[in-house]
Order: sequence, then C-alpha cells, then structure tokens
Amino acid sequence: MTDLTKTPILDRVKLPSDLKALSDRDLRQLADELRSETISAVSVTGGHLGAGLGVVELTVALHAVFDTPRDKIIWDVGHQCYPHKILTGRRDRIRTLRMGGGLAGFTKRAESAYDPFGAGHSSTSISAALGFAVARDLGGDPGDAIAVIGDGAMSAGMAFEALNNAGHLGKRLIVILNDNEMSIAPPVGALSSYLTSLYTRRPFQDLRAAAKGAVGLLPPPFQEGARRAKEMLKGMTIGGTLFEELGFSYIGPVDGHDLDQLLPLLRTVKARATGPVLIHAVTKKGKGYAPAENAADRGHATGKFDVITGEQAKAKSNAPSYTAVFAQALIDEAGRDERIVGITAAMPDGTGLKQFAERFPRRTFDVGIAEQHAVTFAAGLAAGGMKPFCAIYSTFLQRGYDQVVHDVAVQGLPVRFAIDRAGLVGQDGPTHAGAYDIAFLANLPGMVVMAAADEAELMHMVATAAAHDGGPIAFRFPRGEGTGVEMPERGQVLEIGKGRIVRDGKGVAILSFGTRLSEAAKACESLAARGITPTVADARFAKPLDRDLILRLAATHDALITLEEGAVGGFGSHVAQLLSDEGVFDRGLRFRSMVLPDRFVDHDAPFAMYDTSALNAAHIEAKVLEVMGVAQLAGKTA
Amino acid sequence: MTDLTKTPILDRVKLPSDLKALSDRDLRQLADELRSETISAVSVTGGHLGAGLGVVELTVALHAVFDTPRDKIIWDVGHQCYPHKILTGRRDRIRTLRMGGGLAGFTKRAESAYDPFGAGHSSTSISAALGFAVARDLGGDPGDAIAVIGDGAMSAGMAFEALNNAGHLGKRLIVILNDNEMSIAPPVGALSSYLTSLYTRRPFQDLRAAAKGAVGLLPPPFQEGARRAKEMLKGMTIGGTLFEELGFSYIGPVDGHDLDQLLPLLRTVKARATGPVLIHAVTKKGKGYAPAENAADRGHATGKFDVITGEQAKAKSNAPSYTAVFAQALIDEAGRDERIVGITAAMPDGTGLKQFAERFPRRTFDVGIAEQHAVTFAAGLAAGGMKPFCAIYSTFLQRGYDQVVHDVAVQGLPVRFAIDRAGLVGQDGPTHAGAYDIAFLANLPGMVVMAAADEAELMHMVATAAAHDGGPIAFRFPRGEGTGVEMPERGQVLEIGKGRIVRDGKGVAILSFGTRLSEAAKACESLAARGITPTVADARFAKPLDRDLILRLAATHDALITLEEGAVGGFGSHVAQLLSDEGVFDRGLRFRSMVLPDRFVDHDAPFAMYDTSALNAAHIEAKVLEVMGVAQLAGKTA
Repeated sequence: MTDLTKTPILDRVKLPSDLKALSDRDLRQLADELRSETISAVSVTGGHLGAGLGVVELTVALHAVFDTPRDKIIWDVGHQCYPHKILTGRRDRIRTLRMGGGLAGFTKRAESAYDPFGAGHSSTSISAALGFAVARDLGGDPGDAIAVIGDGAMSAGMAFEALNNAGHLGKRLIVILNDNEMSIAPPVGALSSYLTSLYTRRPFQDLRAAAKGAVGLLPPPFQEGARRAKEMLKGMTIGGTLFEELGFSYIGPVDGHDLDQLLPLLRTVKARATGPVLIHAVTKKGKGYAPAENAADRGHATGKFDVITGEQAKAKSNAPSYTAVFAQALIDEAGRDERIVGITAAMPDGTGLKQFAERFPRRTFDVGIAEQHAVTFAAGLAAGGMKPFCAIYSTFLQRGYDQVVHDVAVQGLPVRFAIDRAGLVGQDGPTHAGAYDIAFLANLPGMVVMAAADEAELMHMVATAAAHDGGPIAFRFPRGEGTGVEMPERGQVLEIGKGRIVRDGKGVAILSFGTRLSEAAKACESLAARGITPTVADARFAKPLDRDLILRLAATHDALITLEEGAVGGFGSHVAQLLSDEGVFDRGLRFRSMVLPDRFVDHDAPFAMYDTSALNAAHIEAKVLEVMGVAQLAGKTA
Repeated sequence: MTDLTKTPILDRVKLPSDLKALSDRDLRQLADELRSETISAVSVTGGHLGAGLGVVELTVALHAVFDTPRDKIIWDVGHQCYPHKILTGRRDRIRTLRMGGGLAGFTKRAESAYDPFGAGHSSTSISAALGFAVARDLGGDPGDAIAVIGDGAMSAGMAFEALNNAGHLGKRLIVILNDNEMSIAPPVGALSSYLTSLYTRRPFQDLRAAAKGAVGLLPPPFQEGARRAKEMLKGMTIGGTLFEELGFSYIGPVDGHDLDQLLPLLRTVKARATGPVLIHAVTKKGKGYAPAENAADRGHATGKFDVITGEQAKAKSNAPSYTAVFAQALIDEAGRDERIVGITAAMPDGTGLKQFAERFPRRTFDVGIAEQHAVTFAAGLAAGGMKPFCAIYSTFLQRGYDQVVHDVAVQGLPVRFAIDRAGLVGQDGPTHAGAYDIAFLANLPGMVVMAAADEAELMHMVATAAAHDGGPIAFRFPRGEGTGVEMPERGQVLEIGKGRIVRDGKGVAILSFGTRLSEAAKACESLAARGITPTVADARFAKPLDRDLILRLAATHDALITLEEGAVGGFGSHVAQLLSDEGVFDRGLRFRSMVLPDRFVDHDAPFAMYDTSALNAAHIEAKVLEVMGVAQLAGKTA
C-alpha cells in the first residue's frame, strides 16, 4: 500500500480538467493515490467501499479522456462514486460522506454539475444516458453520455429495456459494463453466466484485439497497428454477442484496471463512435485493498474501519436487528411449514434471506435485481400452492408496484410481502426512504397491511403472514435494531384487522402504526409530569382498519392523533376516511395525522431525520398539547 | 370463409379433454371452425380480434397436446384468449365478452380453472409460469407451465428478468414466443429487429429441422427421421440465439399456423423437455380474416362489426375524445416550442401520440412496452434540456412507479406525465382501471398533480404542463368522449395550485377533482328542486392543494364533500390532511370523501361501473342529503 499521507499528483487535481495536463504515467500514479484516498476516507466515514475501489482506474480514465461536466458520466446506482467525487471538486468534503449535512453516498444532481443524473437504485443509467444523448441530438445540452453499469444491475429489466431502445435508435452513446461478477451478493441469473462466458472463453484482449470488436471505430493509425493482432486472431471465431444482437458495438472484454488499455480505448471510442457502443470492462470489486478483496461481499458496505487491519469498529448492539428477527422468525415458520419459500431480488444479506437460504437452499430464490419478476414469480408460486415470502425493501418494492396490483392484488393471491427498511433509513438518504409503501399498498382491495411496533410484534406478524392464506399480506419494519423488548418463544398469529391498547388514558388518544410507538411512549412519560395521560394504541393494521377500536377511541376521547413512518395517503388517511364515512368529524373530533413531511429528507442519522420530520417524542408531545389547546392545558395544570 | 353456421367439430368440444379423441385432420378443421366462431362472436361484442385470430392453431395444438387445466397455459396479456375461452367451456357465454356480467376480455382466475393466471397487462406470463414450475418441483400443483408471449411483450424488462431467472434455475418450463411482428403498434426496438432476423435469415424449419434446435429433445424415432433434414442443413451455421445465451433451448422458427408442425413439435417437447424451452412461432395477427389482416393494427381492438365487410358499427360521437384533445393540444404546444418531445410505451394509438408523431417524427419516441425505461428516459431528456411529455395510461404508469419516484421526483426533473385512462375504463375491467395514480403521485414531494374536469380543461392542463419547468407535473383524464363543452382556441396556462368555483351556493360545498364535476352538476340540478344549492368547485389540483379555496369553503359551509375518480389515499385524503393540520375538524366540519370503493370493479359500461361504485350524480345527491341530515332536510323542505 502506498503511503496515505503522500498524494502529490492528486493534490494537484482540483477538477477533472487538471487531468488533461497529466501524462499517462502520471494518470497511473493518480489512480494509485485515488485508491489510497478512497480507502482513507471510507475508513473514517464508513460506506460503500468495494464498488468505488473497483472503478478507480475507470474513473481516472473517463475524466482524463472525456470533458466532464460537458460530457456526462452516469454512474449506475451511484455507490461507486467516491473516487469520482474526490476528482470533481469534493475531496475537501469526502470525509463527510453520508453524514448529516455532508456529501451524499450516491451521485446527486443538487450536489455537483459533475453528477448529471443522481442515483441510489440500480439499472437506471442507460435510460438516463439515452435521454441525454437524444436531447443532445435534438439541440439540447451538448456532450457525450456515458453510462457505467455493473453486471448485477444489467440483470434488471429496465437495463434491457434501455439497451433495446438504444440499439433501435442508433444514437452515439457509450455504455461501460463494469463486470465484477458481483453486485452485492454473488451473481445469479443466466445473464451473469453468459457474461462470464464472454471472458472465460477468450483471454483479455489487448487494445488492438479489443478494438477489433468495433469495426470502423479505430482511427487509421490504430487500424494499422491492429493489423498484426487481427492476423493473430485469424481463425478465432467471435460470435455476435447478446449486445451486438441488440444493436450495440461490443468492445471487450478489457481489463478495467489497466489504464494502458482503458486510455487508448476510450480515446478511440471518443474519436470515432457513431452509434451505441458497449465496452465490457472486467474489474475486481474491492481492488487493491486486501481486506475488501477478501471479504465475502468484497467490501460492499462497511462501517468505519482500521485501514491496516480492515477491522470494522462496530458499536455494541443492545437488541437484535429487525432484519435478523425477521430471518429467524421465517426460518422457524418454514421449519414447521414446507410450503414456505423465500424470494429476494439480489439482497440476500440485506433482507436476511441469506440465513434462510443456509437452512432452506431449495426454498430460497434470489432472482437478481428484478423486482418486477420477483413479485409475479411469487404470485405464480402462490397460485401453484406455495406460501411465498417476497422480501423486498420498501423503496425497491416500488419497482414491482404494477405486479403487486395486477398479479397479486387483482387476483387475491396469498403473497407475503416482508418489507424491510420502512420509513427513513439514515445514511442512504431519500432515494432509499421507505416512505410510500403504506399508501400504495393500503388502497389495494384485499391487501392486508401490517407494521411492527417492535421486534416481538415482527415475530407475530411473520407468523400471521404465514397463516394467512386468504389473500395478499404485507408487513413492514424499519432498518436497524429493535427496542430490546422481551421476545416470545414463537410468534403468535394475530387476528386480522385488530389493534391493541398499549396504555389506557383519557382526553387524547394516540394511535400508532409502526415503530413510532416507542416515541409515543416517551412522549407520554413526559406528559405525565403535566398530568396528561393519553391513551396509546398500536394499530398493527393499516388495512383492514380496526374499526371498532378506532371508533371507540374517537367516541371516548376529545382528540385522536395517528402516527406513522410514511407519507400522507397511508394509515392516517385511511383512518380519516373511516372517520368521515362514519360522520365522526361532524361531532368535532380533534383529529391529527402525523406523517412524513412533504419533502425528501436528506441523509443523516435516523433520529435526526425523524427530528427534522417532526415525528419524534417531542413532536408527539407538542401535538398532544396542541390538540388539547393551550387554554385547556392551562386549566388542567393550574 | 367457411360457413359460420356450421361448426360440426367444434360443436362436439365441450372441454379440452374432448380434443384427445380428435384426429390431426379433425383438429385442423376444428381450428377453422374456431376461427369462424371467434370472428362471429367478436362481430357481436367487439373486442380484441386480431390477437385471438393469430393464435387459433396454437390454442388448438396446446389443448390437444397438453392436459389442461392440470397443465397450465398462461396467455400473456390475455387478450388473445377468446379461442381459448371457446374451447374451455365458455362458448355458451362467448357473446357476452366484455359486457357487464359477461365473460372478461382477458384471462381471469375467478372465471375458469383453465385460466390459471389472469392478465391484462403484458409480459407477466414467464414469471408466472416459472412460479408454477418451481411450485410443482417443490411439491405444489403438478403439471406443465406454458407461457405464450408475444414479441411485443418480450420487449418489456420483466420478460427479460424472467428469462434470466428461468435460464438460471433450469426447471422444465415452456415458453412460446408468438412472434407476429406486431403488438398493438408496429414493432420498435432492437429486439424486434433481432427476432425478425432470426426468421428472415433462415427459412421456416420443418418439424425435423426445427427440432434440431433442441438437441436431445427428440425421441429416437424422430431423431431417425430428422437425420436427412440435418444433412440438408449441413454447412448451415445457426449461431446461438439470445435465448440460448440465457439458458433456454431455442426451437424454431416454426409456422404458428401450421398444425402439421405444431402438433408433433409440442408432442416432442412434452415428452422430452427437461429444462426451459423456447419455441419461436411466427404467426400473423388477424390471420384468416381479411379485414383484420389488412387493417393497420391487424384488428387489434374493434367495435362490433359486419362479418362480411368488416365495417365497424360506430356510434356517432357528440364530442371529441379526451385522447384526441390531448393529442391536438400537444401538437399545438409543440408547434410553438421545439423542446417538447413525446414518449409512449408501445401505445401510439391509444395515447394519441401517433398524430403527434405524424407531425413531429423526430420528436416522438415509442420505446416499446417498457414503462420503466420510458420514465427514466424522459427524466434524462428533461435533464438534457428538453420538455418531455410521457404519455402513459394510469394503470401502466404503475410499471414505472419507482422511476417516477427515484428518477423524476427525487431529482425534481420537469417530466410531464400525460395520464390517459384515469378512473374506471369500462370493458377492459379492473386490470386497466386507473384507480391509484392520484394516491401514488400526490404524496411525492414537488409533484404537481392535475385532473381535467372536461376537455377544455385538458387543453389548459397541456398548456400548463408545457409551461411548467420547475419540476414534475402530471395531468390525468379519462377514457372516452368529452362533455361537449365549448373549446378554447388555445389552452391557457393555469396558476399552479389554484382551483375554481363553478357554482356558488351555500350549506354544502362539493369539491371535485376530475370529470365527476359533471355528475356533481347533475346532482345540483336535482337538488335545486328541493331548494338545496350546494357550492361546486373544481379543484383542478390535487397537489399542491388550493389551501385558500379549501379553507374558505370549509369556513363558509357546514359540509364539504370531495369527489374523485380514484381510490382512497388520493385527493380526498390530501384535503383531509390539510383540514386536520389546520384544525378545521375541531370545529365540526361535516367532511366526506367520495372515492372508488375498496374492491376491484368488474368490467361493464363506465356509467354502470361508476354506479356500482356510488360515484354518479344520484350518489352525490344522496351524500349531500346525508351530510345535511334528514332532520335538517325535513326542516328546509317543510
């Protein structure tokens, strides 16, 4: 490893334009320094390390050859952008990555002109790049559009849709397939095997051989130079690749860590490309940092760590994570019911299905980054008599929304949706917020929608979902640790559509859906000092609503406050609909619905995000005081 | 054409099992009779004709060879299922297709055991079939799973995701690619060109040659028979197809109208397939009925028609369709602003972008059945300086929801969403209802959401969207004809977030979002006879809400009723949130939110669907009376 304290070339680079003055030899050194700086920064901040290390050379080569920000580099997912951020005027803030007020962990348009299209979710880059390319050719912003997309992201249908459209339109467009055989989890899917076959059935091409794949792209001097290589390759049949069949010029595979290949190749493509070009670069996730290279996930996402040992500083946890509780609960249920199967869309670690897979490998299906397919595949499994648990983060379930409506809900099929990362998620910021699932699920006829108030409740909800064969059912739970409640031996099957009273009180009723319940409890402790004792209830279900409970609370209290970790349109809106249908508002019920604010909440610690969203205990307390009215309060405390 | 009145073989077929007793010659005649019966039925009912005619032979062959319903035929989209319905015990009701209480126009689980997986949207069949196949191998329902999917549907990412997963899993699974070079519109996309190349660069294979593509599938006698064909083909290099690269055995292309090819091929596949098999059948949409074959859309969807002439009986319309108004308004705006571009996902006819394309071919993009890509492509176009109008039906926009959130809303990009088919859509039924877009769009920060109350309003909204560069904006409008209002010369730019008072009244205020406004007007006419004169307002915007208008209405009336053609969670919920935030409920406002019911509404005439949904004038009138209270009413009328 190079000395982290010495980055003489990098120190001279304030903006990508500074790369133009560097020799190829300097660029190679710059790449080494950039790698060191990336490791150093992430050791302080934590974050996505492996992906960035895998594209250090690509980052240097792209900025050296192309004219950013006029030319637009669109990093798919965006989690590999730390080296890019360091080179594009953000080195001074790179140690604020993913912290409140600091740099985002993904590309972000609002942050820099060098981030022409932000991301967070995968597989959007080719579509966006094609948009830029078409806009350019219609007189919009000039410059090249370059999508850098991983092999995992390429498995998503939307990437295929974009390739299909781009190949048809034939516009100049550059796609770099960053093939590291690894998205977050080991690769799955036939495409992955196919890509591997592309570079195992023939050795890395040198520039000349690689350029052979793009007939006509080479400028005359290169063509001359390539003649000998062509002769060497004579007789070697390279069939049309899948990408060529879709209308792209395919170049590769090339070693994505070899600037001696990347620089001349990119210069050639820049000089000569007329249509869509796909460069197949093979890289290594975590490249150049042994602890990352050797990790099972190639250092995909890490906490702060010691640079020398790679050891991560882990805060001691007081309670199991919701994800771990879900995983264990599902394993327990599946041990008793062989019809239970688990489905993940390339997130076995994040969803906990990895543990499930270790126990039930034949009953676990990682379909790749393919949420649309995941949902309808689950619907097919349900129609075929199985009990599928489709474990998808709230934000990624948006990808399969039509399938939830059309294939699951319309048909009333008993697919179980295990929705992790509900609510605000912290460092990953607004692209990963689980803000909309309550709203977009609870208005679907026949759908059951639950939210766990704590990790014991989550166990009950897994059991409830396993037992519910009458139609689709979803349960949501947040990222992070549980509250440390006592755990039952086994989850109990909840009565569908029934909530529970957590604390009996008077005057004001707080009806919580999800983990804000603990904040409500804190608010009540504080209010008790003022002699105010709200009733607190855990709704458990946003659908079907517990009509009896809600109407009883409304009838016996002056005010009703709903709480949820979701945007307007969800739980509170359904309660309001019930109250209006029943004419409860006519009687002057003081109703308030506390929901996520009408803005995207920037990355920060979850508590801070909920604080700015006015959904913590202090805000609940204030809301109780508001609905009681200052006069009433004064009367009570006087 | 055969005599429609004579269907001797078909008359003997009550269920698919009856096909087992028929000779291949009888099956050929059955196909002819089935085609006649399909034409005859659709001439009475209207509906999707071309697709069904294209698969008559496939339908006969599949039911003759496989053991339905134990074996599961999954018709992608499902609009080609009329011949299938005729053969599966529903012939007696086939002339009720798409009528209230009649057969659905798509496959539907609730309708028949022979419809193992319903559809309506495209490209879901491979995912569902894979679910059945995996369930079978895990001890669930036995039998084969057979997906029949068109070449247009194959362009959707979700089909690719399913192929990728199926190729990886290697389960026995049969996919029949019904390649008619035609989904609804002429084919677009590189995949389409590729598929065409597959059968233009080599002639149709006879059975033996076709079977060559599936090494090992052939039983020994066939292998023997195939030897000569192989010799004939010697020297002819057939490269690996895209499907083979994804892990499928590729068989074809075969003539999908030739039972002499289909029957032995399917028998062979049934007897020998061990993994995923793709049969590439080339068919002709509208096959065997000249008026359909010769139509530009190959008789995709038709009204009732005269069987001899093919002439459609068209009701005289009193007003232009919303779609036509949108198309003309967009053309007008684009004539004044060259940054305007139009995007459709394989629906140029349905969305009106076909007319736009005739005027602005370079500024029109049909991306294929690819809503995910369509939305992010539009986002890229907006980021590149264009003004994209992304014209997608409400129900299909569900396919691009994550892209609306992640690529458009989070980044605040000015993509214009033109959302046709808002609300209930009539004969296409629940899979095509535009029920959820208000809810899933209006809670996105920065999104502007409008609904047109009539066709003149639609013109204003197109102009408003064209002028709005500050962020994303959506406007929704229903299927069908406008109300016949006087049309302005040119749409005017509306003030964002401002509604309008349509009728001043007292006591009750009706706040409408969308085309229920005319029903509200009717209700008021009826109420006037009782001396009741509600105020009626057109909200125009669900987001941002017209706070001033709503709070003023609430302050000056005893009751406020919201109206919308959408599910709970949308406009009424946003109004309720405002009212609760502002403490208006505390004062006892009688608030009601009239929304679509919490069930999927079966296909019927739109008026009937709204009737069962309690959203017509009579229901509005009843709601007004309810909020006024019977006593109050009695007092007033006394």
